Amino acid sequence: MKIGVLGTGTVGETIAGKLALLGHDVKMGAREAGNEKAAAWAKGAGQRASHGAFADAAAFGEIVFNCTMGAASLEALRAAREENLRGKILVDVSNPLDFSKGMPPTLFTPSGDSQGEQIQRELPEAKVVKALNTVNASVMVEPGRVPGEHDVFVCGNDAEAKAHVAEILWSFGWKNVVDLGDITAARGTEAYLLLWLRLWGALQTADFNIHIAR
Amino acid sequence: MKIGVLGTGTVGETIAGKLALLGHDVKMGAREAGNEKAAAWAKGAGQRASHGAFADAAAFGEIVFNCTMGAASLEALRAAREENLRGKILVDVSNPLDFSKGMPPTLFTPSGDSQGEQIQRELPEAKVVKALNTVNASVMVEPGRVPGEHDVFVCGNDAEAKAHVAEILWSFGWKNVVDLGDITAARGTEAYLLLWLRLWGALQTADFNIHIAR
Repeated sequence: MKIGVLGTGTVGETIAGKLALLGHDVKMGAREAGNEKAAAWAKGAGQRASHGAFADAAAFGEIVFNCTMGAASLEALRAAREENLRGKILVDVSNPLDFSKGMPPTLFTPSGDSQGEQIQRELPEAKVVKALNTVNASVMVEPGRVPGEHDVFVCGNDAEAKAHVAEILWSFGWKNVVDLGDITAARGTEAYLLLWLRLWGALQTADFNIHIAR
Repeated sequence: MKIGVLGTGTVGETIAGKLALLGHDVKMGAREAGNEKAAAWAKGAGQRASHGAFADAAAFGEIVFNCTMGAASLEALRAAREENLRGKILVDVSNPLDFSKGMPPTLFTPSGDSQGEQIQRELPEAKVVKALNTVNASVMVEPGRVPGEHDVFVCGNDAEAKAHVAEILWSFGWKNVVDLGDITAARGTEAYLLLWLRLWGALQTADFNIHIAR
């Protein structure tokens, strides 16, 4: 499958790398078409990897991953252009973390809104699915780094899109994919980051995740 | 031990009932000394149970539980009076849920603050320990309702106070008590409520909890 990955940071590189390893055709998108990190990634990731501007990656992908920093996501998606994302699944991995007031970060969305909803409002014809934002990048694509049972979440307004994303998550190695409902549930998975940050501090490792016992 | 429980709702009744069952002397506090729910609870809970105004329960307890609704907690604690809580462990079970804008609730604290911190600021000489706010009332005192391993959190500025609260949690049946650090970690456990609400909706039961896989 042709997949666009927006973002050249750790999350973008990790997701794009895993997708390329799994045999997908992956185009990494950056703010500038000639971005050095994207070029270096594409060079190292094999023949099916390529790179370009945000709009190039969005136009290329049948599915598109938003792996940009939360604070830069809306601008990146505007640069990717609405017409390149219309009708497509947009997997939003970003978190609305505000580092401007120091550490630990706060959230720049109020508790009655979320980054996932903002993106869905910005791109009403894209099928936004929030996923993977509750774990560290390395765990996203290699859930086996964390022993035992643990869960990943999807939410979004389109059931078929969520089912498709769940298949991709299974291909990453995830076993438990919990559907939390429509995109407003992103308020929950994004707010969880505030607990994630404290767990990270207490456990002194990012190789952890939560399991829903029931 | 003598324990004061502020609040006559489901959480207050559940916690007070468990503490009385475990052999503690428990005084339930309400806004008015003659509160009917508190009187009915004390009547049914045995000879070691009593009731009174918030200030009576706070003065009575060597340890005090705040089980009032989040939006009413600061007012209740002011009525309990600072001098009755000075030097004591105050276990804050409340959540800053704002139901004024409809369902699902939002949080009335911004992501850079928390109810736990607000209470600690209001009562600088009390030893505030945030605990139990991440599970349903019935699970708080009977963690075995949820099968398998799962965790409860404590945070607060006083290590001894947290150790003491952990002992009470063990007596409730909890096995894994995770110390998240100082009271600012309440930002994490309170924000998690937004995910808890979505899980509740998706699972159609409140008998669930999270386990930290690592």
